[in-house]
Amino acid sequence: MELESVKKSFMDRLSQIRGLEYAGNIVYWDLATGAGSRGIDARSRAFGVLSSQTQMMMMSEAFLSELEILELNINNLQAQDAMVVKEARYQLDRISKIPMNEYREYIELTSKATVAWEEAKSEADFEMFAPYLKEIIEYKRKFADYFGYDDHPYNAHLEDFERGMTVKVLDEFFEELKATIVPIVKAINEKNEQPMDDFLYLSYPIENQKAVSEKILYTIGFDKEAGALSESEHPFTLALDISDVRLTTHYYQNHLTSSLFSTIHEGGHGIYEQNFSDSIAGTILADGSSAGIHESQSRLYENNLGRSEAFWSYFYPELQSKFKKQLDCVKLSMFVEAINKSEPSLIRVEADELTYSLHIMVRYELEKALMDGQLEVKDLQSAWNDKMQSYLGIMPKNDAEGILQDVHWSDGLFGYFPSYALGNAYAAQIEIALRESMDVDGYLRAGDYAPIKGWLSKNVHQYGLTKTADEIIRIATGKPFNAKYYTEYLKEKFTKLYNL
Amino acid sequence: MELESVKKSFMDRLSQIRGLEYAGNIVYWDLATGAGSRGIDARSRAFGVLSSQTQMMMMSEAFLSELEILELNINNLQAQDAMVVKEARYQLDRISKIPMNEYREYIELTSKATVAWEEAKSEADFEMFAPYLKEIIEYKRKFADYFGYDDHPYNAHLEDFERGMTVKVLDEFFEELKATIVPIVKAINEKNEQPMDDFLYLSYPIENQKAVSEKILYTIGFDKEAGALSESEHPFTLALDISDVRLTTHYYQNHLTSSLFSTIHEGGHGIYEQNFSDSIAGTILADGSSAGIHESQSRLYENNLGRSEAFWSYFYPELQSKFKKQLDCVKLSMFVEAINKSEPSLIRVEADELTYSLHIMVRYELEKALMDGQLEVKDLQSAWNDKMQSYLGIMPKNDAEGILQDVHWSDGLFGYFPSYALGNAYAAQIEIALRESMDVDGYLRAGDYAPIKGWLSKNVHQYGLTKTADEIIRIATGKPFNAKYYTEYLKEKFTKLYNL
Repeated sequence: MELESVKKSFMDRLSQIRGLEYAGNIVYWDLATGAGSRGIDARSRAFGVLSSQTQMMMMSEAFLSELEILELNINNLQAQDAMVVKEARYQLDRISKIPMNEYREYIELTSKATVAWEEAKSEADFEMFAPYLKEIIEYKRKFADYFGYDDHPYNAHLEDFERGMTVKVLDEFFEELKATIVPIVKAINEKNEQPMDDFLYLSYPIENQKAVSEKILYTIGFDKEAGALSESEHPFTLALDISDVRLTTHYYQNHLTSSLFSTIHEGGHGIYEQNFSDSIAGTILADGSSAGIHESQSRLYENNLGRSEAFWSYFYPELQSKFKKQLDCVKLSMFVEAINKSEPSLIRVEADELTYSLHIMVRYELEKALMDGQLEVKDLQSAWNDKMQSYLGIMPKNDAEGILQDVHWSDGLFGYFPSYALGNAYAAQIEIALRESMDVDGYLRAGDYAPIKGWLSKNVHQYGLTKTADEIIRIATGKPFNAKYYTEYLKEKFTKLYNL
Repeated sequence: MELESVKKSFMDRLSQIRGLEYAGNIVYWDLATGAGSRGIDARSRAFGVLSSQTQMMMMSEAFLSELEILELNINNLQAQDAMVVKEARYQLDRISKIPMNEYREYIELTSKATVAWEEAKSEADFEMFAPYLKEIIEYKRKFADYFGYDDHPYNAHLEDFERGMTVKVLDEFFEELKATIVPIVKAINEKNEQPMDDFLYLSYPIENQKAVSEKILYTIGFDKEAGALSESEHPFTLALDISDVRLTTHYYQNHLTSSLFSTIHEGGHGIYEQNFSDSIAGTILADGSSAGIHESQSRLYENNLGRSEAFWSYFYPELQSKFKKQLDCVKLSMFVEAINKSEPSLIRVEADELTYSLHIMVRYELEKALMDGQLEVKDLQSAWNDKMQSYLGIMPKNDAEGILQDVHWSDGLFGYFPSYALGNAYAAQIEIALRESMDVDGYLRAGDYAPIKGWLSKNVHQYGLTKTADEIIRIATGKPFNAKYYTEYLKEKFTKLYNL
């Protein structure tokens, strides 16, 4: 067969695989945002069929032999086709390394573990979940051997979220965060002067919250023709295609800012997914560069831009007019102080901007120790509590607000948490470059987001998976990644806010 | 291989096919009820992948050889397994008879034809659509030859909707309808005394319409845990599984009864799909017996029960309390007269109960004549207008409200329309048996639908595809199908309503 026709056939197969993934994603969306409760089994069956079909197609001999032909001729392919071929090989290698039957057993284990975790959490009893977690970790350690790694088995799992990221880099990164953040948290605590924020917890009718969320989302640059905003228990972004990016948020009657910042956060993820270049749209390369880079875009909009005075100088009058009774006496400056209040708390997803990365640090250190065997599941609970006490100065009263709070481990997601902290740090470094290239605050005050979105698309979004996280940071900022931009940002911001 | 393991493998394949169909249905649901406008291409691709995968699985050698082994051993299978095997063969035969490439060309033609039809309809210009229709009919006539038929090529297409149904039976059926209905319509027209119904077209806030629609739907027996009610341009029912049946309706601010009766109608379809017996749930047999039997269940709830005084004696107070301003002066009897008003109109989907089947008759006669070549597309428009004039006494002013009103032909759906009229007739015969077995009006007045649903489930719903339409009618009514129950029902009802 001619190279050209092998290529066409191979690309067709990839596009079929994508079609199946797309369908699986729609089933997931439907599950999370609509649908009656009794249909869950039928949906799970459909899920199972789709994923086994995907895997069969990807591991078929036809796929493999075409891939090999293309690899032999990689120098005769156009640059983007060559990247597609390399990425397909990368993904195939990852899924082929674990023996099929072990992987199936592991998947079954995680389904059961998720149910066990839910029950354990509602009873606030870690013992109910511990045996499952122990088994999951055994699998994860075995998988690390299958994947192969240098230095530390945790590296094999970091690869799923940040390619090339290592324990060595992260140890240094978190040490730097610890050295900066822990003293600021202590200083704020000792000063004991918090801004007023009780007005954020009055009753805010949900219809009006929706109207403001949508106004902000579409103003900051999310294209509503190419997506949707819906509701679910936990907010998430689901990108089906650059033409169809779905977001969810969650409205609470008595917590105004929860839905607002969730919407802005998911909006950042969504804007990233809507702005891959047309040339990679619909291909295997239309994906975020890494979980951390993805998170940098959501955090940039949510925190660096979204908690600034300039941001709200545009949106606050709108918010006030929707909630006259609740906000009439609250000045813009009071509102901005309130949404930047920092106070140690137990639940990661509700943590403020300053303390958030400390929650991640706790999880990073525990995951690493579980993975290399320095920590056992039976000692996990007390290790958790100790770390919370030492970094945040507070201790959970029970397992539900402690070790059982996150779904990740029951799902087998080890190595994901660090990306959240990296995202914050990437965002800080990117923000500086963005501000060097334009009058960001001027545009925020004018509600004119086109220049910001344009700059981010050009320097970050367009590349999708064709550049690594490291490359993206160099392209966008002209420098290698450095955590000091993030630590300096936090130091400056909170020193000023709290007059430290 | 042992028979048992062949059977298991074959059933697994069928369940995988069902999983793919399920996913396709969710994609369809998503398209119709949510989702931004730009994602349509990506969704179409996913659709294409799913249906080609389904077809590949069904036409694979492995599937075929297992099917043949099971057929050879059909007497050693349990009754239900034998039915599954026969049904799989039936479906495989239907899809295998048309050469794959011709079928693909035909599918492409219908996609283009649907676009052309939409444009033609918006311009009210049949000429824009005629060339596509001509081609579709040529395919349909060829396909009839592939399928094979006795007597009339139209029979080959009726098979898709009512297995075993023939032109011979339908000719007689429609003659009987014509002989009864046309004179009643004339008599009403000559009498020229219509009930007042302008209050149905006041402004009815949609939130309250929703509340009433949901109240009625869940009261008449639709299980909300096993389904959902959403909104779409055209109401429809989509059954994913007995545990997950989706309905849509459409709310119009100035047309109260449109959404109410759409909801009740789709509710009837939905209750049918939720009540297949557990033993056939999730199998190829979990489907309506025929399109006509399906329609009988929606029409029974919508018309036979849903337009009765007894039905509204329970629900009308609720409706009145939601719309005090609009309905305070409207007595129950006035409301019931208004929702049963009969008056010839041009649009089928808006036709009243009496004239509805005449719209179907027009389409039946035209489809039949197109299929056997007695009528050509170039003469279709005038044939349509002539028949409207002769049966309903009215004539469309343009093609949009005439020959272009239905989507069916552009979709290649020939032979479907008769099932709508058959459904009305089946419903009338079933209603008599239902009333013989219990005090239906007593239960309606009490809002107690469990006995009615129980009877329908036992006599109709539970069987799914394991009984033919003919068998269902005999089981439910103890007699063979006879159109006279329907004609007598109409005669009695409208003679009384209009004092003829």
